[in-house]
Order: sequence, then structure tokens, then C-alpha cells
Amino acid sequence: MDRIIKNLDSVFEPKTVAIVGASATPNKIGNVLVKNFLEAKFQGDVYPVNPKYDEVLGYKCYPDISSIPGKIDCVIIATPAETVPQIMEDCAGKKVGGVIILSGGFEEINRNDLAGKIREIAEKNDIPVVGPNCLGVFNPYTKVDSVFLPTYKLERPKAGGIAFVTQSGAVGSTVMDLAAYYGLGISKFISYGNSTVLDEADYLEYLLHDKETETIILYIEGAKNGRKLFEAMKKVNKVKPIIAFKAGRGRGGQAAARSHTGNIAGSYLAYQAAFKQAKVTEADSLDEVFEFVKIFNQPKPAGNRVAIITNGGGMGVITADCIEDEGLILAQFSEETKKEIAGILPSYGSVANPLDLVADAGVEAYSKAIDVMLADKNIDALVIIILMQTPPIDERIIHVLSRVSDMQKKPIVTISIGGTYTEASRKILEGKGVPSYNSPNAAVKALDRFITYARYCDQLKKIK
Amino acid sequence: MDRIIKNLDSVFEPKTVAIVGASATPNKIGNVLVKNFLEAKFQGDVYPVNPKYDEVLGYKCYPDISSIPGKIDCVIIATPAETVPQIMEDCAGKKVGGVIILSGGFEEINRNDLAGKIREIAEKNDIPVVGPNCLGVFNPYTKVDSVFLPTYKLERPKAGGIAFVTQSGAVGSTVMDLAAYYGLGISKFISYGNSTVLDEADYLEYLLHDKETETIILYIEGAKNGRKLFEAMKKVNKVKPIIAFKAGRGRGGQAAARSHTGNIAGSYLAYQAAFKQAKVTEADSLDEVFEFVKIFNQPKPAGNRVAIITNGGGMGVITADCIEDEGLILAQFSEETKKEIAGILPSYGSVANPLDLVADAGVEAYSKAIDVMLADKNIDALVIIILMQTPPIDERIIHVLSRVSDMQKKPIVTISIGGTYTEASRKILEGKGVPSYNSPNAAVKALDRFITYARYCDQLKKIK
Repeated sequence: MDRIIKNLDSVFEPKTVAIVGASATPNKIGNVLVKNFLEAKFQGDVYPVNPKYDEVLGYKCYPDISSIPGKIDCVIIATPAETVPQIMEDCAGKKVGGVIILSGGFEEINRNDLAGKIREIAEKNDIPVVGPNCLGVFNPYTKVDSVFLPTYKLERPKAGGIAFVTQSGAVGSTVMDLAAYYGLGISKFISYGNSTVLDEADYLEYLLHDKETETIILYIEGAKNGRKLFEAMKKVNKVKPIIAFKAGRGRGGQAAARSHTGNIAGSYLAYQAAFKQAKVTEADSLDEVFEFVKIFNQPKPAGNRVAIITNGGGMGVITADCIEDEGLILAQFSEETKKEIAGILPSYGSVANPLDLVADAGVEAYSKAIDVMLADKNIDALVIIILMQTPPIDERIIHVLSRVSDMQKKPIVTISIGGTYTEASRKILEGKGVPSYNSPNAAVKALDRFITYARYCDQLKKIK
Repeated sequence: MDRIIKNLDSVFEPKTVAIVGASATPNKIGNVLVKNFLEAKFQGDVYPVNPKYDEVLGYKCYPDISSIPGKIDCVIIATPAETVPQIMEDCAGKKVGGVIILSGGFEEINRNDLAGKIREIAEKNDIPVVGPNCLGVFNPYTKVDSVFLPTYKLERPKAGGIAFVTQSGAVGSTVMDLAAYYGLGISKFISYGNSTVLDEADYLEYLLHDKETETIILYIEGAKNGRKLFEAMKKVNKVKPIIAFKAGRGRGGQAAARSHTGNIAGSYLAYQAAFKQAKVTEADSLDEVFEFVKIFNQPKPAGNRVAIITNGGGMGVITADCIEDEGLILAQFSEETKKEIAGILPSYGSVANPLDLVADAGVEAYSKAIDVMLADKNIDALVIIILMQTPPIDERIIHVLSRVSDMQKKPIVTISIGGTYTEASRKILEGKGVPSYNSPNAAVKALDRFITYARYCDQLKKIK
């Protein structure tokens, strides 16, 4: 790994952070930034930098980088574009660990001169630079947080295994907000904007070696170096699955992408081919990014034979359609399974896949049916539909599902659709690591992509 | 309209309701049913029927239908299948207005004998029968509610213009729960199960004449009479748009559908062709049903030229892609519009479609940009992306959007993605009749379907 990439450790795990452009005025970006560190109880030292103030939110404020005593690991810059090259010089002089430039006003408005200077200083001094024109990073493990959106509007997710590498700050932040909402844990959030110094391939390389990261989301508009990205994806995806989403596909989108981060969106077909060849899981929409990523915490399936359990017949019908649409197979239960299930069902029920436990089904019936199916060698994965609205279903279903998920025998996905009560249950499930979907299509599509990735990993093992 | 269909008025707007199989035991179906009427403060008379009790939840209980004094408009039956023919005879003797049979155990388990008897009595006496094997009906206007799922688990939507005709009770109820969650108003909920007496075509015919109903959702697994359904769809859809979703498409799904409501799912291709020919809006998934229906309250667009407004560049890029994917057109702003927008944007902003107001944009900028675009003859519809997470966006955006929506000049859809704060804002928007999506794909797809329907209505007018 290049030294400059390795140095990203200073950005993600700093002991000292300087915030250039800190402000004492509430709601200003430079104020929100300092507040983030204060409220998150960041364990290291925080140095606001702004010649206008002596103090910001109780922290001593410094006129410039050079006047801060001691070593600085991470510098966050939120001042106008024209001021950034000089600040970078100061950073080099101070031998800081790494820099996050939030400010816009570079390549995206054709100020390549300013961008060039930043690149020059960074590369000469091995200073990793995130940005410019971005939201920077969030690391729930160390509480480094340059996302200048207030936490009451944009919740921060808990610590976990999903890394986000996103060219667009806004797009990435909405997905981060969703992750927090549903209790999904993340390892790193990286909004890299114009990718003036480090690009998406560099971040992938870094995350490959990051011990907290298990799965990677990549949102990209236009890569600077397509071949480099392809090689990085191929290498990293073998170890940690990548879910990639490419925006700027059509002409209108490409033009918009150009003025957004100053990158050329490039031919979508080329990206699509690269994803395919690198065996990266491609999401076709922002929804799919979120839907796909959360299944990858499950144990890898041995095949594509799926069992469906439901307490609502219609939802079983819809889900069976999805299974066939995706080219998966409705599992044929073993004779043993059929016998055992017949014992669970009411007299008017019938043993079939989808297995309709009917609306009278209680938590016990689910628990038994699931256990039987986990033991059946003809079944590779379970789709468990739970209509939370029926009277016999209560919160014990959450215990059953998280027990099954913890056993890590076969992948399970759950489907529940509804309002307040159902959404509350879904959030608890997600928080316990049980993938919960409010759409049969989304659940089955995610399962299909996970099965495809598992098959790829199997092939890799055989080659070895 | 047939007399038997017309008589559904008794089911939806009864003054007196009898509940056969009422129970004093909490959580039993027969208890939840009586409780529904009690808690919803139903204005008419409620007669529990069960020889075991003198009283249920404070209502005097009767041993059978015949012993109830006076006229009965609507009878809800929740007793075992074998008992239903005799109860139907009692209903005929008593000349009741209409019947809802919730009980299962008929065609779906090959008890066509029992179903046949019910049909015979109903048709001979012009008694409309909803069901059997269903959740029956909910009418928020009159509070008739045979949906035997507790209201704390399945919220009931407010009164509005969307009717649900659903073969599967569970599927329909989850969508109803979602509608309540997001504050969408419904006119009638009809879960019709086995369609032994009245079928989906009959309900469509009824809803055509229902003054509360403006838009219709149709969830179907298998119609008894495909030609009749086609004719009804064609006729009704000209006046009130129908969003149709067909489940039981593949082999597995068809088998599941058969054991679910006893109907043959039939060739999906035939259904698809029928939807297309009847110009009915087909949803491809349950998600789409919900996503599509909520845009039909908007004023009909004159064409397919769409303007996008955003405060997050990446989200504009994604949405522009969706516009092109759906074959819609990114509007070319008039010179007047360009000039006025340039005045709204910060110096580093650029006038383009998508219009990126950038993250600094406040509510004022949105309000002005929207007004300019509403006045531009080159623009037929607006997609307004609002990332609620940015500091300058506050609740005044809701006033702006509902004002625009109330003006009913051009259709608008909004897109906001995020967690708690964003979801709360989305619910308020939906409650005020502003379609809000958490997915650019869903928003644009819905807009496309609405534009298609509007074009069809235009053609109909020209023919006249």
C-alpha cells in the first residue's frame, strides 16, 4: 500500500484534530464541525483555527495551523477555495498526518489551478487529502466527524462493518442517515468529492486493510482513472464484497455530474462491464444500495434453493413470483421436513413452498418451521415473511429471528410491511443484525445478489 | 348497475350491523370485530350474534339473526364454514342488505359445495356477499370495519379518495397500514377473498359510482371471469384511474395462489395484455402500487417535460438518469426562467436542469425557483428533491410545497431520503397531499405512469 494511502490512518484515527475555519456562530459549518467533536465526546485534542476568535465552544482557538503546539494528526479545512493552497503549505510545514478539505470551488467550477496546487503539495509531502468539495469522513469508532450536517437532522450510525465510499456527500449522507434509522452499523463513511489527491481506488485499497470494514458501498459518478478503479475493485471484492452504484448514466445525468464534482461521468456501459468482470455487486438504484448491503452480514449460502415461510398467503404468492423472476429456485422440501411441518400446520393448512402458516400462526409455529428448514439439506436460504399485524404475532418473534440469525447456519431475510407497529419491529430486527425488508422484490433481489457473490467466493476457493 | 351490486350500499353505509360469531373473549376475531365498531364510535346499531352470550362489550347479544328486532343492513359472519349456509338462509329470511363472510374453508380447500350454496342464496335474494375467506371491508367515512386486526398493529387510514380492491386480505391490509402511516386517505377498503358471489369487476363497477372514490388500487391473484374484468377495467379506468397489480405470475406463485383463494391465477401475459389494452396502470411490485397511487391526486400534466430542483448535486444526477430511463424529457428552460433563476443562485451556481440550488439553499430559494418553473410553459411537471438534512432547510419548506400542491397548476413530486427527521417531514407532506418519495426511481416512475394516464385522458377528450 502506498505511504500516502497508509497515512489515512491519521485521518480516521487521529489523536489531535485541527478545524480550520472554525466559527463561534451557531449553525455555521465551522461551528457545526466543532460541535460534532464536542457532542460525540471525541477522546483526543481539538484545535479550532480562526484568527477571529480566542475560543470556540470552550476550545482554545488558534490563528493558524503553525501556531498550534505539538503534532497534528488530522486537519479539517472549511475555508474559501482561494485560501486552501496556503493552508496546505502550512500543513506540510507542520508535517500533519492528513487533511480533509470540505470547501468547494475547485475542479467543479474549472479552478484546476487551485486543485493542482493542492495535489502538488499533498503528493510531495505524502499527505492524504480527502476531498475537496465533500463532506469528508465519519468514523463511529473514533468519533472523527467532518460531516457538517447537524446530528438531529442527520443521525450518525453506530459502529459496525459497512464502509461507505461516496463521491457525492449528499447521496452518501442520506444513506448514512437511513443506516442510523434502521440501526445498521458502519465502519467508515468517506465522502471524497473531487478526488483531487486520493481517488475511489485508493480508498478501496485502504479499506481492504481496515480491520473494522467487512462490506463496502461505492457510489461513483465519474472515476479519474477507470483502469485503476477496475483493478482495485477486482482485488478488494475478492476479500470484502463491494456494492457499487454508478450515477450519471444518461446525457442529462452526465452533464449534471460534470458540474457536480468536476469529473467526467464516462460511458455507463464501460462501468457496467467493469463491475461485471470484477464480480462486484451492482446496484441499479440508490434503494438497492441500501437493500443489498444489509444481507452481506449473513452466512454465505451453499446454493440457490430458497424456502419461503409466511403467515399471509398473498405475500407468499408475490414472493414466489420474485424468486422465479430472479432465477432462484423454490426448494423442494425433504420427506422428513414435510412430515415435521405437517405436524405444525392446522388441519386446513397444506405443506408447500411457500409454506403458508396462515394468519393463526403464532411465534411457536414460526420457530418450529424455521428449525426444521435449517436442518433440511435441500434448502439453502430462508425468506421469512412476517405480517406483524396478526394478533398471534408478538415481540417474541424478534427473539426467534435473532436467535436464528446468530446461529449463522443459513442466510435468512425477513419481509414485513406496514405502519408504525411494523416499522418499529423492523428497526429492532435490523438493529439485531436480521435483514428486514418492506418489499418482497427487494428482499429476493438482495438474496439473489448475495447468492451470486457466495458462488463467486466458492469458485475462488476452488482455484486456490 | 345490477341490483345486487347496488345493494353494496348496505355493506358500506349501514345503519345496523350484525356480527355473527361475536365473542366476549379478548383477542378472538369475534371480539376484535365488535371492538372495532365500539372504538371507532360507529354511529349506527351493533348487534353481536352468539347463542353463548347475553352481552358482548356492552352490546346486547342475540342467539341468531332472526331474533334481532328490526331491519339489518349489514351482516358480518365469522363462524366456521359449515355454519355459513344456514346463516345465509337466516339472512335471506330477514331480508338483510348485504353480507361479509370472513370465514375461510370454501373453494380454497375445495369445499365448492358450501360455496355453491352461498352463491345460490345470495343470487336468488340479491344479497351482495363480500368474501368468503377475506378481511371484508373498511370505510373510514362510516366506520364500518370488518378487518379483524387490532388497530394498534394495523392503523386505519383517514378518509380520502383511494379505494383498495384486494383479493388477498393480508396484502391489502399491509398497504392500508402503510397508507395510514403516511397519512394517505382512503375511500373504501375491500378484501374480497374467494369472490364467490361478487368479483373484482363488480367492485370496480360499484366504485365507478362511488362519490368518495377517485383512484382505485386493484390487487388480483386470479379472476373468475377475465373478459368481464377486462370490460370493467376499460370502462372504469376512463373515469377513475386504476393501478393494478397481478400476483401469481410464475409456476410457484400460481400454485400458491390456487391454495390461497381457490382461484386459478391464469396466464400473466394475458393479464398484462388486458391491463395494457384497458390503459390501466400496471404496478410491477407491491411497492409500486403504493408509489404510483399517491401521485394521481395531482393535476394532470400537459406533457412529459420535467424540471428537477435539488439541494444535493448527486441526487440531481441520479434523478436525471431516472428521467431518461423512463423516456421522459429534461425540460429546456425558457429564457425568462433562466434569467430569473440566475438571480436566485449563488455566484458559483449554474442554471441547468437539474437545477442544483446547492446545500446552502434555503426555503426562499426553493419557493422562488418553484414559482418561476410553474410559470414556464416549457415545463410540464416538477420533481423537487429536498435533502432535509441541510441546515438552511426547515419546516417552512412544508408550507411552500403544500401551497404549490394546493395551487394545482402542474403536478409535483418530492424526493427526500433519510432517517427520523426526514421521515417525519415526509409524513407531514404526504398528509398534506404532497407526494413524497424516498427513492428517485420510484418518484420518476410514478410520474411517468401518471403522464401516460394523463395522455390517455387527453385522447379520450379529443375523441369526444
